Amino acid sequence: MHERFPSRLLENAVEAFSTLPGIGRKTALRMVLSLLRREEEEVEAFGASIIRLKKEIQYCRVCHNISDSDLCPVCANPNRDPSVICVVENIRDVMSIENTRQFNGRYHVLGGIISPMDGIGPNNLEVESLVERVRSGDIIEVILALSTTMEGDTTNFYLYKKLKDFEIKISTIARGVSVGGEIEYTDEITLGRSIVNRLNYRDTLNL
Amino acid sequence: MHERFPSRLLENAVEAFSTLPGIGRKTALRMVLSLLRREEEEVEAFGASIIRLKKEIQYCRVCHNISDSDLCPVCANPNRDPSVICVVENIRDVMSIENTRQFNGRYHVLGGIISPMDGIGPNNLEVESLVERVRSGDIIEVILALSTTMEGDTTNFYLYKKLKDFEIKISTIARGVSVGGEIEYTDEITLGRSIVNRLNYRDTLNL
Repeated sequence: MHERFPSRLLENAVEAFSTLPGIGRKTALRMVLSLLRREEEEVEAFGASIIRLKKEIQYCRVCHNISDSDLCPVCANPNRDPSVICVVENIRDVMSIENTRQFNGRYHVLGGIISPMDGIGPNNLEVESLVERVRSGDIIEVILALSTTMEGDTTNFYLYKKLKDFEIKISTIARGVSVGGEIEYTDEITLGRSIVNRLNYRDTLNL
Repeated sequence: MHERFPSRLLENAVEAFSTLPGIGRKTALRMVLSLLRREEEEVEAFGASIIRLKKEIQYCRVCHNISDSDLCPVCANPNRDPSVICVVENIRDVMSIENTRQFNGRYHVLGGIISPMDGIGPNNLEVESLVERVRSGDIIEVILALSTTMEGDTTNFYLYKKLKDFEIKISTIARGVSVGGEIEYTDEITLGRSIVNRLNYRDTLNL
């Protein structure tokens, strides 16, 4: 159903919003009408924040994280351990891991994972720059923190092959039963992995 | 949980999007990162469409519908019957009724409904301009097409009192079982109304 808009300006704005992920035309219209009810300065600030972001945003020259300058806050922070690199798919994953406050090393943002179905191969990702970082720096460990999907596993294996000849530890995030998860409702593959990769109980006590 | 953003520009844009109705910070971040992956021209057009909308939009001087000029497309259309006015709460309702293609008159957008809980009284709505339209024009019928809620009923009754001394027909949209609705699942009040306001079956045949 194509709606008839009483205004071309309104239609343009609704069309713009409905290109956002998960936003249909009805929701887009609701958003646009909500903006229309605000003060002009607020709406201008809204529009300007998008334009400025795209125009002025930079990517960290070391880890490719999003940044306001050419070095991201993590890479610029002298208190972060430069010898441990956590490899993630995207910026959102950096933010998720930062929110856990459990990691004090640095990141490497691949910009995606290997996915032949979507036409994404290793050359579309920041793989060479990762190898270069490992080659030129005093790296002790690379943590592969990719999704536990087929694409994630493929990428893990590809990175492992690229890095295995360096004298570093290559680790991957633990797979297991979620904290608070019930055994009964855990899928069999995860449960099986959690038994195979069982932990020394004593080691879990000081977490 | 307050997330730590690697960029102030990113944070500003996410904050702007999370002021939209129904959008939390996670969804806002997803939207902003989706914009960031697009071409600069597209992102600028996006931002500009919002700013232009707010700056240049007008409201129809007759019916208060949203418009690109001071007369909306419905009021400017000589093929629409000017003697029938359909009173609605907002612009979205105009669009919904237009989409049915069952109405060929003109509109009057109240800009809300009477809702003491939200501090909205008749003086906050376009009531006087409606009375003025009825007084000065050759109006035959006013259709009250407000929500069938308590606030809608209150507003209907208020408008009825304002308009009842004019020599016009005052009607309201039919309440009844939805088309395709099953009797069993229709609420009792709607079902009761649909029996009291039953239609001559013959009249329904040519719909």
